[in-house]
Amino acid sequence: MKASPNRTTLHDLGEAGIIRRIQEHGPARPASHIRKGMGDDCAVLETGGKRLLLVTTDTLIEGVHFTDQTLLPEALGWKSLAVNISDMAAMGGTPHTAFLSIALKPESTIRFLESFMVGFKTLADETAIVLAGGDTVQSPSFSVITIALLGDCAPENVVYRSGARVGDNLWVTGPLGNAAGGLFLLREGSSFEPSGYEALIQAHQRPMPRLKVGKALGQSGLVHAMIDISDGVAKDLGHICEQSNTGALLQTTSIPMTDALLRLAAHVRRRPLDWALHGGEDYELLFTASSSDEDKIVSLVTKISGAPPAKIGTMIREDGIWLETEAGRRRLRPGGYVHFS
Amino acid sequence: MKASPNRTTLHDLGEAGIIRRIQEHGPARPASHIRKGMGDDCAVLETGGKRLLLVTTDTLIEGVHFTDQTLLPEALGWKSLAVNISDMAAMGGTPHTAFLSIALKPESTIRFLESFMVGFKTLADETAIVLAGGDTVQSPSFSVITIALLGDCAPENVVYRSGARVGDNLWVTGPLGNAAGGLFLLREGSSFEPSGYEALIQAHQRPMPRLKVGKALGQSGLVHAMIDISDGVAKDLGHICEQSNTGALLQTTSIPMTDALLRLAAHVRRRPLDWALHGGEDYELLFTASSSDEDKIVSLVTKISGAPPAKIGTMIREDGIWLETEAGRRRLRPGGYVHFS
Repeated sequence: MKASPNRTTLHDLGEAGIIRRIQEHGPARPASHIRKGMGDDCAVLETGGKRLLLVTTDTLIEGVHFTDQTLLPEALGWKSLAVNISDMAAMGGTPHTAFLSIALKPESTIRFLESFMVGFKTLADETAIVLAGGDTVQSPSFSVITIALLGDCAPENVVYRSGARVGDNLWVTGPLGNAAGGLFLLREGSSFEPSGYEALIQAHQRPMPRLKVGKALGQSGLVHAMIDISDGVAKDLGHICEQSNTGALLQTTSIPMTDALLRLAAHVRRRPLDWALHGGEDYELLFTASSSDEDKIVSLVTKISGAPPAKIGTMIREDGIWLETEAGRRRLRPGGYVHFS
Repeated sequence: MKASPNRTTLHDLGEAGIIRRIQEHGPARPASHIRKGMGDDCAVLETGGKRLLLVTTDTLIEGVHFTDQTLLPEALGWKSLAVNISDMAAMGGTPHTAFLSIALKPESTIRFLESFMVGFKTLADETAIVLAGGDTVQSPSFSVITIALLGDCAPENVVYRSGARVGDNLWVTGPLGNAAGGLFLLREGSSFEPSGYEALIQAHQRPMPRLKVGKALGQSGLVHAMIDISDGVAKDLGHICEQSNTGALLQTTSIPMTDALLRLAAHVRRRPLDWALHGGEDYELLFTASSSDEDKIVSLVTKISGAPPAKIGTMIREDGIWLETEAGRRRLRPGGYVHFS
């Protein structure tokens, strides 16, 4: 028996379906002050000045995005802001103002709040972001943090998800899968000796958003499409493909992974590529550019971040995301983090 | 025995203490693009254009701000946006863009989401607000809605909480206590015959923010300080007093209350004045202006809203909020809605 529409749950509908339903309630006609509304890392607004206003918002929920086992309060404060900065970086923008809405349990300690704010402020100061408002409310049973982050960008430097072209190189700014490996270690807890894996845990707890690289890539004019890797390459690359009307072919052997991740995967008999492709929360930037600009891209990213980007694939005409492996070509199913699944 | 600072809970600290702790993590030096950060209804930012950017954000939590007994999904969608519009109105601003972050239970139905969006969209369309982004995440056990609302205002028309002067008249744009009466009825549920009290229930479920009046008051240049009544007159007037370094004297007999509220209060043996002064969620505007501008204020508000504002008191030099009653003058303790109490 098929569920009646009135009784269909959000679990049945899935995250993509939910977002579609919400998007249907967006503006019926284009609003003149909005260059980009829903569907990218940030909304892009005109406010009458020379620069465009960029806005992004992200929510972290205790029990879904973190637990007191995986994130100590200071790391939570840092990460809550970092995930928003990463969205700003993915548009080529410069963040300047944050709004923090925080729902806390009455039994939370002042120490929790202070530590949270220290983590938040440390990253805010490093990135010249000012906390200018928010809301503080009581939560019945778990903490919820929503940050709205505002920034700006020159109109000619904004990079959207929708500009990828067939034949473009596909690049990523750093190694993949570390955050997933770190989360695995944190969840295993004391049953596993984590020494030597500090970088993986750091990747999960204190991701450093690629703000300078994102901004430089936007200013270079070389980048056709960009997104940050929050839900995993498979899913996030899917957004670029969908909005650019292209497919993508990934070279398995080119996916950058750290020695620590490979070592951990071997030790616990997991496939490191699954972490790299589907793990999510790496907060590296994924972007496309003409193959003729390969040298310029390598030189630019190396100059800013101290390490070259990895060329992990090519944008293709054929629909879908494909994986070129030693055993041949296979289609990659989206397997990043999916809400309501 | 005094609790150790490390174990002191947020419940011990109270909402005001929590906000102070967060504010300590605001900018060490004034940021050049921020005209007003924390501590007013909206933050006020310069973005390079002629108009200032106004930003506000509010969170509604199931079990704290609403239950499925007090707010049906459509009313929830309406009210989530309304409370933010009210903050914009209290600065004299014009809202234009909303960001909706919504954490939903997996067992919520599509019908819930659709109804929520219908309520949201109805008010958004009425007020020319465009939904331009947000975040949709899964909540383990209760719904959380955070809206960030952006708007703008000419620099000379922004009204802050801090400009009240000794001798000013204190005005309110409409009756007080209706939302508290409505909430009382909704909580009593079927044990009480609610006929004749529709306006009270409406006031709780579908408050109509005073957007046009707020904007006109800002443009008039007559208003010295303004705030919206979300937590109750006692508490919200306290913010004006604190930031303007004044006190206030309220005339009990001038507090506007509807016949329906007085009738309900008599019927259930409550003091209607408690609802009016401490109930909160009325979303009327509370503002001060020179006593010499009394006629202009009455004429302006009447023209825009169809009804005159009520003059409920005077700003005084003496600290605190005082109530002039038939039995004499007494000090009013803050008794609005207090989180973490």
